[in-house]
Amino acid sequence: MQQKQITIIGAGLVGSLLSIYLAKRGHKVKLYERRPDMRSTTIAAGRSINLALSDRGLLALEKVGLADAIRDISIPMHGRYLHQPDGATAFQPYGREGQYINSVSRGTLNKKLMDLAEEHGIEIYFNHKCSQIDWPTNTVYFETEAGEQSVRSDIIFGADGAFSAARLQHQLHGDRFDYHQFYIDCGYKELTIPPTASGDFAMHVNALHIWPRKEFMLIALPNLDKSFTCTLFFPFEGDLSFSKLDTEEKVRSFFERTFPDAVPLMPDYIHEFFHNPTSSLVTVKCFPWVRSDRFALIGDAAHAIVPFFGQGMNCGFEDCRILDELAGIHGDDWQAILREFQHTRKPDADAIADLAVNNFTEMRDRVADPSFLLQKKIEARLHEKYPDRWVPAYSMVTFSPQVRYSTALQHGQRQEKIMQAVMQREHITEMWNDDRLHEEIIQQLVSSRP
Amino acid sequence: MQQKQITIIGAGLVGSLLSIYLAKRGHKVKLYERRPDMRSTTIAAGRSINLALSDRGLLALEKVGLADAIRDISIPMHGRYLHQPDGATAFQPYGREGQYINSVSRGTLNKKLMDLAEEHGIEIYFNHKCSQIDWPTNTVYFETEAGEQSVRSDIIFGADGAFSAARLQHQLHGDRFDYHQFYIDCGYKELTIPPTASGDFAMHVNALHIWPRKEFMLIALPNLDKSFTCTLFFPFEGDLSFSKLDTEEKVRSFFERTFPDAVPLMPDYIHEFFHNPTSSLVTVKCFPWVRSDRFALIGDAAHAIVPFFGQGMNCGFEDCRILDELAGIHGDDWQAILREFQHTRKPDADAIADLAVNNFTEMRDRVADPSFLLQKKIEARLHEKYPDRWVPAYSMVTFSPQVRYSTALQHGQRQEKIMQAVMQREHITEMWNDDRLHEEIIQQLVSSRP
Repeated sequence: MQQKQITIIGAGLVGSLLSIYLAKRGHKVKLYERRPDMRSTTIAAGRSINLALSDRGLLALEKVGLADAIRDISIPMHGRYLHQPDGATAFQPYGREGQYINSVSRGTLNKKLMDLAEEHGIEIYFNHKCSQIDWPTNTVYFETEAGEQSVRSDIIFGADGAFSAARLQHQLHGDRFDYHQFYIDCGYKELTIPPTASGDFAMHVNALHIWPRKEFMLIALPNLDKSFTCTLFFPFEGDLSFSKLDTEEKVRSFFERTFPDAVPLMPDYIHEFFHNPTSSLVTVKCFPWVRSDRFALIGDAAHAIVPFFGQGMNCGFEDCRILDELAGIHGDDWQAILREFQHTRKPDADAIADLAVNNFTEMRDRVADPSFLLQKKIEARLHEKYPDRWVPAYSMVTFSPQVRYSTALQHGQRQEKIMQAVMQREHITEMWNDDRLHEEIIQQLVSSRP
Repeated sequence: MQQKQITIIGAGLVGSLLSIYLAKRGHKVKLYERRPDMRSTTIAAGRSINLALSDRGLLALEKVGLADAIRDISIPMHGRYLHQPDGATAFQPYGREGQYINSVSRGTLNKKLMDLAEEHGIEIYFNHKCSQIDWPTNTVYFETEAGEQSVRSDIIFGADGAFSAARLQHQLHGDRFDYHQFYIDCGYKELTIPPTASGDFAMHVNALHIWPRKEFMLIALPNLDKSFTCTLFFPFEGDLSFSKLDTEEKVRSFFERTFPDAVPLMPDYIHEFFHNPTSSLVTVKCFPWVRSDRFALIGDAAHAIVPFFGQGMNCGFEDCRILDELAGIHGDDWQAILREFQHTRKPDADAIADLAVNNFTEMRDRVADPSFLLQKKIEARLHEKYPDRWVPAYSMVTFSPQVRYSTALQHGQRQEKIMQAVMQREHITEMWNDDRLHEEIIQQLVSSRP
C-alpha cells in the first residue's frame, strides 16, 4: 500500500474518527481544527449538546476498536419517556428487549476521540482556520495566530461541519456544484436539570425524556454527572415563539403552563433562557462531494441534517466506515475509492436527511396523538411477532446498522402507507391485536415489495 | 423624499436599469462592475448571447421611457420556426396576430443601458470586484487595480448575477439563509450563421429557429448585422454529449446527420465547437433577499433561472419596475419597500424558475411530437375564440405583463390538466375543432377556478 499524506480539515467527531481509520491503514494524517483545544479550554455555556449514539455509530467505532472506550462514557436509553401536559407520563420502548441508544456528551466524546487520535500518532493543529484551498496544487491555507500557513498534501478531507469552509472553497472553484441548504422554522435552546439535592438523577435515567407539545417540544438526555441536558425546540416566530417570549414573566408563565412537571427540576431555566444562545437547524445537501483522487467532503460538511432522528453523528461515523471498506476494496486507487464513496453514500445521506425532517413533525405533533400511539402499538406488536419482516424505519435506522438509510426510508414508506389504510378501518381500536389483521398486514407488505 | 446614497453591485442589464429607476426618484446612485467597460473592450468570442425581450421587459423599460431606444436595437420574432430532421419546416406563432418577442444582443443592450445610465447622471466604476461587505456599517469592499476600495452607503443592491458576490457575503454573514442552486444536465455552446454572400439573412428573419431533437436542441436568433447566433443545448455526459464529441470527425458526422439544413449555413461550426466555451445552466433560489432597509438582491442574484422561457432578463427588469412601484407606495420607508419587494417577488421568481425548467423539456422533447402539436393547435384555437379565458401559460408570461408569473403558472397547470384528459379522447384528431368540445373545455376551466 502506498502511504498518502492526508490533511483533514476539522477535528470534530467525524474528523477525529476518520484520522484514526486512515492512520490504521498506514497513511500520514494531520488534523487541523479552527477552534482551540477543547481539552484545555472551557466550552461555552449552553453549548454542551447531548448526542444519541446508536448501533450504526457503535459499529463504526467497533471497527477501529473504540466502541468499548466510548461505551464507558455513555448512558443507555431504552425508550422515550413521554411527559403530557396534564402531568401523565408514558414509556415507549425504542425497539425490542435489549435494544437501546446511548446518551453521550459531544464534548466528552470529542475529547476522547482526540486523545485516541493522538495515541494513534496523529498530530492535531488547533486554531487553524481554513481560509482557502488552491486546487491545482491541493494546498490548504490556514489563518493562524502566527500568520498564514499552507499545507500541501495528496488528499484533503473536509470534515468541518455544516458550515464547512472546505465545502465553500469546493463550491467557489468548481462548475456544476448542486447545493441546497434550508432551515426549519424552529430553533433550539439548551436548559439544564441538575442532580437532586441528594446527588441523584432527577428523573428516570435510562430514557430520552420528551415533552411533546404540537408546535414545539422539550427533550432531556442524561449525563454522567447525573444532570440532564434539556433542549427546547421552539419556533423562531409566531404566537408562541422565541421572538414573543421576551420577558422573564412571559417565560415563567409559559413554562409553568406548558411543562409543569419539568419546571421544579430546572432551578435556573429563566436565566438560561435569556443567556444561552438560540441556535438554528439547517439541512445541507450537495453534490459532488469529491474531486478526482484528491478531495472529499465527509460528515456534516457533505450532508448536515436536523437532529430529530438522532443520526447526524452516527451517519458521519458510518461515512468513515464505508470509506474504509472501499479503501480495502480499491487499494491505492483513490479515484475509485472516492468516486464510489460519493456514489454509495449520497442516496443514503439524502434519505436520512428526509427521515430526520419527517421525524421532526412526528416527535413534535404526533407522539401525543392517540391514533398515532395505537399505530405504534400495532407496529410494535408486528415487529415482535415478525421481527425480520415488520421492522419500523426507526428500528432499521437505529438498530440495523447493516441496512442502508435509503433502504430504511423506502421500507418505512411502504409500511406507513399500509398502516395509514389500517388506521382508517372501523373498530381498529378493538381489533388492533387480531391475528388475522396482522397476517393480512404482513401479506400486504410482502406483495408491496418492489 | 429623502435622497439616499445607493450602491449597486453589478452593471449588467438589471443593475443598469435599476440605477436609472433610482436616479429618476432622486437618489444618488453609483454602479460598480467587476469587468472592464464592454463599450471599450471586445467581448470574448462565443459569449455574445441573444436574448428574447418580451412585453414584460418592455413594460419595465417603458416606465422609464427607454422602450423605444431598445426597440431600435431589436428584431421582432413572431413565432418558432421548426426544423425537423428530415428537412421539413413549420412555423408556430407565439401568440395572436401582432404578438411577438424581440431578439436583442446582450452586449448591445447592456452597452445601451450603460449609456442611458450615464445620461441620467449615474457614475459607473469598472474593474471593481466586490470582495466583502461589512454589514454593521453597510460598507462594500472592492478589489481594484489601485488596491482595495471601500464604499459606505445607505442602501446596497446586489445585481451581480447568478454567481453573485453580494449574495455570498449575505449568505456567509447571516443566519437562516435558505439557498438552493442546481444545474440541469445540459450545457450550451454558441455557433454562428453568418449573413449570406449577398449580405442577407440566411433564414427567415422574424422567427426563433429551433431544431428540436429530443435529448438536445439547436436554436438560432437573428442579429442586426444579418447573422444568427445559434445555441446548441446538449448533454454534458452520455451517448450523445459534449464529452463524446471529441474529434472533428465526430462533430461533423453528428451535425450532418442531425442538423442537415443548418450545416451549410454554418461555415465555421467545427472550429467554433472546439474553441467556444461550453457553459452550464444553473437555477438559484434563495431567501431572504433583503436585510432590513439597507440591502436587497435583485435579478439573477436573487433568482437565476434557465433560459428556456426567455424570461431571465424580463424577470429582472420586472423586479426593477415592482421595486419602483413599491417606492411610490411606501415613500421613504425602505424597510417596508424591501420587505414587500421580497414578499411579492419571491413566489413569482420561484414560479418562473419552475416554468423555465419545465419548458426545457417541452422545447426539447415535445415540440416535434404530433400529439403535442395537435394540443397546441387546439389551445391556439381556444385562445383565438376565447382570448380572455383560455390563455396559454406561454402567452400570459410573454404577452400579459400585468399577470404575475405565479398566476400564470397556476393557470397553466389547470389548463394542462384539462388538456391532458382531452388528448386522451378517442377521435380527438378528427373532432379537435368541434365547437361543443371547445365549450366543454372552457366550462371545465371555469369550474376549476380556485
